Amino acid sequence: MMMADAGQSLGDSFSFLDPNADSCAGKSGDLLVADYSDPAALSQLAATADIASYEFENVAVEAVLQLQEKLPVYPGVDALKACQDRLAEKQLLQQLDIPLADFAEVNSRIDLLAAIGKIGYPAVLKTRRMGYDGKGQVLLKVPEDMERAWHKLGDYPLILEAFVDFNNEGSMIAARAQNGDIVYYPMSWNIHLQGVLAVSFSPWYATELQQQAEDLVRRILEHFNYVGVLTLELFNCDGHLVANEIAPRVHNSGHLTIEGSACSQFENHIRAISGRALGSTQSKQVSVMLNWLGEIPDHGQLLELPGIYLHDYGKQARPGRKLGHTTICAENWDDMRRKLNVFSKVKNPAVQAAIAALA
Amino acid sequence: MMMADAGQSLGDSFSFLDPNADSCAGKSGDLLVADYSDPAALSQLAATADIASYEFENVAVEAVLQLQEKLPVYPGVDALKACQDRLAEKQLLQQLDIPLADFAEVNSRIDLLAAIGKIGYPAVLKTRRMGYDGKGQVLLKVPEDMERAWHKLGDYPLILEAFVDFNNEGSMIAARAQNGDIVYYPMSWNIHLQGVLAVSFSPWYATELQQQAEDLVRRILEHFNYVGVLTLELFNCDGHLVANEIAPRVHNSGHLTIEGSACSQFENHIRAISGRALGSTQSKQVSVMLNWLGEIPDHGQLLELPGIYLHDYGKQARPGRKLGHTTICAENWDDMRRKLNVFSKVKNPAVQAAIAALA
Repeated sequence: MMMADAGQSLGDSFSFLDPNADSCAGKSGDLLVADYSDPAALSQLAATADIASYEFENVAVEAVLQLQEKLPVYPGVDALKACQDRLAEKQLLQQLDIPLADFAEVNSRIDLLAAIGKIGYPAVLKTRRMGYDGKGQVLLKVPEDMERAWHKLGDYPLILEAFVDFNNEGSMIAARAQNGDIVYYPMSWNIHLQGVLAVSFSPWYATELQQQAEDLVRRILEHFNYVGVLTLELFNCDGHLVANEIAPRVHNSGHLTIEGSACSQFENHIRAISGRALGSTQSKQVSVMLNWLGEIPDHGQLLELPGIYLHDYGKQARPGRKLGHTTICAENWDDMRRKLNVFSKVKNPAVQAAIAALA
Repeated sequence: MMMADAGQSLGDSFSFLDPNADSCAGKSGDLLVADYSDPAALSQLAATADIASYEFENVAVEAVLQLQEKLPVYPGVDALKACQDRLAEKQLLQQLDIPLADFAEVNSRIDLLAAIGKIGYPAVLKTRRMGYDGKGQVLLKVPEDMERAWHKLGDYPLILEAFVDFNNEGSMIAARAQNGDIVYYPMSWNIHLQGVLAVSFSPWYATELQQQAEDLVRRILEHFNYVGVLTLELFNCDGHLVANEIAPRVHNSGHLTIEGSACSQFENHIRAISGRALGSTQSKQVSVMLNWLGEIPDHGQLLELPGIYLHDYGKQARPGRKLGHTTICAENWDDMRRKLNVFSKVKNPAVQAAIAALA
């Protein structure tokens, strides 16, 4: 939806394939309701489009290959494959000399014992595929946790990762054009609640960390000859960045680029895949993004604040569902603190986390 | 379209009534194709909506009255009536003590002679109704022009207005909420080519003129107990503002508020009519809006400039048709001059007018 809204301004039209008939993208183009891998739906999509893209890393590789026979698809299938399997992803990061936590492949109880022997506690056992928002993960702190973790995840191909004791989590979003040009957004600091992104602050990190992050993401983009927006999630460990994971798409933490940057991550993805020049990622203010999970606080109260931008996706409310987000722009972090304090009585976890983080 | 795009972010949905099946608004909601006054279409529209609005001052008053029986319509019908008839509009401005050019009602050759006797040359003979973009007007410089003007327009109810010898033309866009709050956008300086808006610069005028303009538009908004966005077009005559006309709607010169102001004219119109708080009109940069009439210059060339925003409405090209616009934001007018000069070789009248104006 947000990519189409950006692309429509440039004069482009959009068709979507989504298994959900109430997908909010349907408001911004033609919606084809079918499974992502439905061959007839993919043919129909290819027939109406000049270029295809996806913004969900669990789309089947076969679906992308089917589309690729008919029209250009960005990002390419190599990046998708690497990001669908945590093991392949970690091996790639290692190959590109990008700092990351120790890891080991786990396909049996014996593997798990050996992996713990190598990595030690605390460690995180994760499914290699289909994990997101903290799902498919178990933290192992003591030997007694092992059996519980195996019982829960033992049916899947797994990976054990050393637990990273980080100061904060951040993301580096970058876009690469067909001609190889790259633009980098200012890094954001991300706060997760129950495994789901709740708040992002941007630009947050100092120049030194920004340069580290740009260097790391550039290696990934160039390795894949990538076209489009890619996000590298990072841990900040006392001024050293450690890669967490790669998302081959626009990112929730980049929603604040709609108002916070000259050209948003969504417009830059569309510009990249359509062979246009990339737009400026410059940011003249500081921004906070609050994710609305399960419920959106009263509009009236929110809209009274100057420099606030509400995005209500118009979805049916369900506990924990992402229903929208709000970006607040301010002159600087002191100004932002004052703005956020207006909401100190709003009983919303994202709002409270943002206020606490800036306190 | 642009109002719906702003309102969708707030979680609102839109239905449109438009006689053109290819109306670009159809991309942003359900499009009902029928005449603005079609009673069945109006009933259908009313049945699907909670609130109605219009952004074209030549909608029939009867259509608005029909809608009003079913649901709230903003702005109210009094403002619409006054803006549909140049004579009523001028009388209102006079009543509100807003400076304006001399004028006289003209319904016959005798009236025209008397009006010229009162107003003198140069003067402009205009149809009272349905004029826009310089249509339905004849400039009278010498007595010989009178017969030609009468021959062209004599079948319509007319008004003769003194020609205003202005330094520049500008617009003051303001929004009034249901609770009476008013926000004012920075005034813009507007350049017309062949009667059609080609370029707007904002914020342009000094504090003193901004205050004059806010005072004038406030009188109009309060007179009508107006709800929504209203535009007062003004002439700057050596530091004194003279009213030109009122547009009871968002305005072409305000398209630059999408990127140039914290909250756009479109979002503020939606906020106002839906009873929400108004958003900040603050502008941290300077902006230029270039109207694309008849053709849009090559996208590739435009998109390479940082801080440029292309809006391609996706319409079929026709000579003189408004196909889109582009906003350029810059730190200050020196920076803007440098940015515009990048396009010095683009053979487009709006681009050339903008460069010449800032030279």
